[in-house]
Amino acid sequence: MRIVVLAGGIGGARFLRGLKAAAPDAEITVIGNTGDDIHLFGLKVCPDLDTVMYTLGGGIHEEQGWGRADESFTVKEELAAYGVGPEWFGLGDRDFATHIVRTQMIDAGYPLSAVTEALCARWRPGVRLIPMSDDRVETHVVIDTPEEGRKAVHFQEYWVRLHASVPAQAILPVGAETAKPAPGVLQAIGEADLVLFPPSNPVVSIGTILAVPGIRAAIAEAGVPVVGLSPIIGGAPVRGMADKVLAAVGVESTAAAVAAHYGSGLLDGWLVDTSDAAAVAEVEAAGIRCRAVPLLMTDVEAAAAMAREALELAEEVR
Amino acid sequence: MRIVVLAGGIGGARFLRGLKAAAPDAEITVIGNTGDDIHLFGLKVCPDLDTVMYTLGGGIHEEQGWGRADESFTVKEELAAYGVGPEWFGLGDRDFATHIVRTQMIDAGYPLSAVTEALCARWRPGVRLIPMSDDRVETHVVIDTPEEGRKAVHFQEYWVRLHASVPAQAILPVGAETAKPAPGVLQAIGEADLVLFPPSNPVVSIGTILAVPGIRAAIAEAGVPVVGLSPIIGGAPVRGMADKVLAAVGVESTAAAVAAHYGSGLLDGWLVDTSDAAAVAEVEAAGIRCRAVPLLMTDVEAAAAMAREALELAEEVR
Repeated sequence: MRIVVLAGGIGGARFLRGLKAAAPDAEITVIGNTGDDIHLFGLKVCPDLDTVMYTLGGGIHEEQGWGRADESFTVKEELAAYGVGPEWFGLGDRDFATHIVRTQMIDAGYPLSAVTEALCARWRPGVRLIPMSDDRVETHVVIDTPEEGRKAVHFQEYWVRLHASVPAQAILPVGAETAKPAPGVLQAIGEADLVLFPPSNPVVSIGTILAVPGIRAAIAEAGVPVVGLSPIIGGAPVRGMADKVLAAVGVESTAAAVAAHYGSGLLDGWLVDTSDAAAVAEVEAAGIRCRAVPLLMTDVEAAAAMAREALELAEEVR
Repeated sequence: MRIVVLAGGIGGARFLRGLKAAAPDAEITVIGNTGDDIHLFGLKVCPDLDTVMYTLGGGIHEEQGWGRADESFTVKEELAAYGVGPEWFGLGDRDFATHIVRTQMIDAGYPLSAVTEALCARWRPGVRLIPMSDDRVETHVVIDTPEEGRKAVHFQEYWVRLHASVPAQAILPVGAETAKPAPGVLQAIGEADLVLFPPSNPVVSIGTILAVPGIRAAIAEAGVPVVGLSPIIGGAPVRGMADKVLAAVGVESTAAAVAAHYGSGLLDGWLVDTSDAAAVAEVEAAGIRCRAVPLLMTDVEAAAAMAREALELAEEVR
């Protein structure tokens, strides 16, 4: 079975670990979000790709969900001693090495997809991890500030520095309209037996991937089941601040509203949490098969159970 | 008193610490060798500038003479886990931060001299440290290999990886002939009250600085005392493998031969070690005032005593 998964960071990575446990023989291709990539200290940082790679490769900081286990912060402290920031982005020493290798390869002319493959040669994530695009796409968030009025900031500045503490007026995937899917992306979708949307952020993670011209259409026209899992439980995001960016695109923070945002033209099946069982009828009325199952990824087994539910729902709608 | 010092790495840095102690009120300008700069992991590394900066700024690894105190090697270990080398060059985590800041500034368009000034804003070395040139000069060493015949390798590969274990056939300061002295270099020489050559390597450190067009002539024509200290004691280099690169330029590893290599057109005074007292007459016969004094920089006080001897000799030849 060939499965394509569109993934953001922590939620996508943890779901993928469950999926690997639930379908050990499946060929899994992960199309990773690169919209929150950022250049820091002259280095190219790909937070979502790295979270997937570290999580599936056994190098992740488990409690935190991102970054490396047993991490130290000597380089960052030294950079701060030089007065060089930003200090709000937590790059550890082990993590720095990844960005140094990536930047060196990109400067040598390799596309991000080839670099990602090279990094994965170390981590052996057990999936094929492809960035959504080799072209630069950068998610910007429009906010209103007392000092400077309305302005756009990098997604990481909004998310990590500001903790999404001010309303997002708009989400701009800058560069997306001219970006091309990375080599292998459309082919993987075309050859997939099913496509899964993990409980990743529907706007700045999966939404950004779908904003790369060709990807949404390829999924919609693949003729295979497309099943998603709600990142919203009981009217609130499971982690992160997805409600803030959903509001920016006019979508309520409910499991049903997110399903409707993807739409029945894209989604065939949708899993909501048992606490959102009341939403099932509404989602099904919109033409998307829906089931209520436990959606909290408390551990790998819980994530695997969710993956099994998604696979079953996919067979049901096939 | 304005003093200009041409400096390589460890020997130059330790002498400078003594000079600061011996002449606390002097305005010291250090013209640093950049011929052994190297790009590693996509980062610009300037070993000699950093050794001067760390030594005078209190961050040096004292026993080792280069690199940072309390250093860790997490980044390097992680790079090795990615299969990315070279492993033979010992870049520590603290040191990496320096190279990251430097590379980021250079990529942003700042010349090395401005970058060095910015880095020194943290270290406050108590001297003005200027790279010999903002242009790229790279010392290559020609060696004979059983596998590939005669070839040129980067100085660091010869020095650090090969430990100068094979004879150097030639020393090539690649790019030197078209390099321009960095801003401030010629002016500092023109305004100096004296010029000192510390016991740095006469070929690959001071020789490389002198190979930048304009610098040798400016010193020769400055009309102020030029005094050097022998890096050769009792027929052997105090540290490093200076004899190997001296042989490549046809110079014997003796205190007198090094003085003659600089020549009376450049040098006015020369200090040899007490164990080389027999060389004094030979050096003076070549037109260079010479004294035998203890030249082992066992500690800061010993280096300060050497600096005082150099300052006295400068007054004697003025």
